[in-house]
Amino acid sequence: MGGDHGSRAIIHGAARAVQDNPALTLELFGPRQHVMAELSRLPQPLAAAASRLVPRDAADAVPQEATAAWALRHGQGSSMALMLDALSHTHSGIDAAVSAGNTAALVALSRRALGMLPGISRPAISTAIPARKQRQCYLLDLGANVDSPAQRLVDFAVMGSAMAQCVDGIEKPRVALLNVGAEATKGSASVREADVILCRYAAQGVFDYRGYAEGGDLYSGCVDVMVCDGFVGNAVLKSSEGLASMLVERVQAAFESRLSGRLASLLARPVLKRLKRELDPVRYNGASLLGLSRIVVKSHGGAHAEGFYYAILRAMQEVEHNLPERLAERWRAAP
Amino acid sequence: MGGDHGSRAIIHGAARAVQDNPALTLELFGPRQHVMAELSRLPQPLAAAASRLVPRDAADAVPQEATAAWALRHGQGSSMALMLDALSHTHSGIDAAVSAGNTAALVALSRRALGMLPGISRPAISTAIPARKQRQCYLLDLGANVDSPAQRLVDFAVMGSAMAQCVDGIEKPRVALLNVGAEATKGSASVREADVILCRYAAQGVFDYRGYAEGGDLYSGCVDVMVCDGFVGNAVLKSSEGLASMLVERVQAAFESRLSGRLASLLARPVLKRLKRELDPVRYNGASLLGLSRIVVKSHGGAHAEGFYYAILRAMQEVEHNLPERLAERWRAAP
Repeated sequence: MGGDHGSRAIIHGAARAVQDNPALTLELFGPRQHVMAELSRLPQPLAAAASRLVPRDAADAVPQEATAAWALRHGQGSSMALMLDALSHTHSGIDAAVSAGNTAALVALSRRALGMLPGISRPAISTAIPARKQRQCYLLDLGANVDSPAQRLVDFAVMGSAMAQCVDGIEKPRVALLNVGAEATKGSASVREADVILCRYAAQGVFDYRGYAEGGDLYSGCVDVMVCDGFVGNAVLKSSEGLASMLVERVQAAFESRLSGRLASLLARPVLKRLKRELDPVRYNGASLLGLSRIVVKSHGGAHAEGFYYAILRAMQEVEHNLPERLAERWRAAP
Repeated sequence: MGGDHGSRAIIHGAARAVQDNPALTLELFGPRQHVMAELSRLPQPLAAAASRLVPRDAADAVPQEATAAWALRHGQGSSMALMLDALSHTHSGIDAAVSAGNTAALVALSRRALGMLPGISRPAISTAIPARKQRQCYLLDLGANVDSPAQRLVDFAVMGSAMAQCVDGIEKPRVALLNVGAEATKGSASVREADVILCRYAAQGVFDYRGYAEGGDLYSGCVDVMVCDGFVGNAVLKSSEGLASMLVERVQAAFESRLSGRLASLLARPVLKRLKRELDPVRYNGASLLGLSRIVVKSHGGAHAEGFYYAILRAMQEVEHNLPERLAERWRAAP
């Protein structure tokens, strides 16, 4: 029931996912009548797969503007809470949850319903940012934790590198700590303290710790995991989205003002269509809630059907690699 | 002597500035032989204005990788320190300083040589980020201050709004505080505390305080000043630069792969040329060091001649509006 484009976009994305993945079944939490109505409106190639889209009745939804505290107090009957309840019962056969709803509520309700992995106190949110050289960089935390002390930044490094290793098969992920400069004397107190701890970890070969990096290195393709406080990560992610969407408009305007209508449609539009996706990549990947005992993926609130589809694929990858169990192993092995 | 493209780019930008502004004279601090040699190599339309480019001999330069502490201890004979010394003597007739060098050194040496305005403890760095609706947004701080307490964030708001008012003539600048969400319960402790103080200021009509904003609002055109800790601002600015420059490459690659060579050069290249500037706007504006008793502008380290030219224009605007004096007035009037 979440997301800026309503449940229709979500159900379209879900239908595409079951169509492309014959072994996949999705349970859709929301008011049954509403979900049934949307399912009956699916266009033909998608409608054929709808037997693997199973409505689960949930009368309420968490409002987009609700706080975490509100969700914990009043959200019991919401589609989000019922989805997480179902995920928490292993006999339900559910492997992962995907939501485009309120992030703060999703973090709080997931933590209560599913519990954390041993040794981790709070979930972190991470998404893969597309970078140069056909690579990507996991950025975390994206807003679940603000004013993070040094040890929590270290936890992010361990979780992020475990994800890059398990899901993407990177043997020794390159991990960097976001800072205002590469010099050891720069940065906030918690970042400098985290650097000292991470250097110790690196000496034990857990991952390839590259020290400090700057904001621009996120897109360089030279780092697999970029670690920062949730306040910083959230500001970086959202400003990048804002910039990308402004630039898409400018590219479009520049071509439309230069090329005549017919030329534009023949030449520029196909290129622009592809570019739109390339220019706004952050909107297309699901964000993982890490550190929970089960798999939860947050789809971007502004995602259309395609974005929700990719969030489902992300959850499937994490299921395939049994991410929470692998994270727990890494935790036990950490120095 | 600073900047990634060496003194040639700086001298070209300076030559263009004096050519376009008949009342402008620039003193160029660097090893005299070196500066003279570059001046003698200026191509013709620029060379004509070179009489208003006056070399000032400075044997040393602050290395790009030097720390602020190093610059304070060993930087006395550097081009940067001599430039700031000259600016500090009112009888020198110098109105402003512009540098593309080491930012940390520039902040530290400026503070020592020029002193702060009464009531301000440390400089803040701010630049104008181009936004939608033909507007721009001053973002500050960009890295001079990390772990900023609430009162310093409030100082940033006062300085940023004074700049938007004086230099850009915005009667009542719209000021927002960068946060992870619009809800009052979100954010770091210092941001929530700053919000309380800013609401008091707003009640007195000093500026139009809009409350919390998210990273994406930087580009929305709905805010004139966005306030954040220097760690956050630096990460936002540098990641935006990295993203913009990656997107420029992708736009170029997309067109080159789709359009044949001749078509590409006829149609796409003029558009791309204009776009390159539009897509990487943050590189083109100088950043102001605010709170000092005199005017200092930092040109982007990666700026070519054109970027340095714009940094000089920025300094000229601040001279024209007598920015430090106006800032000091605002400070005396602040609640």
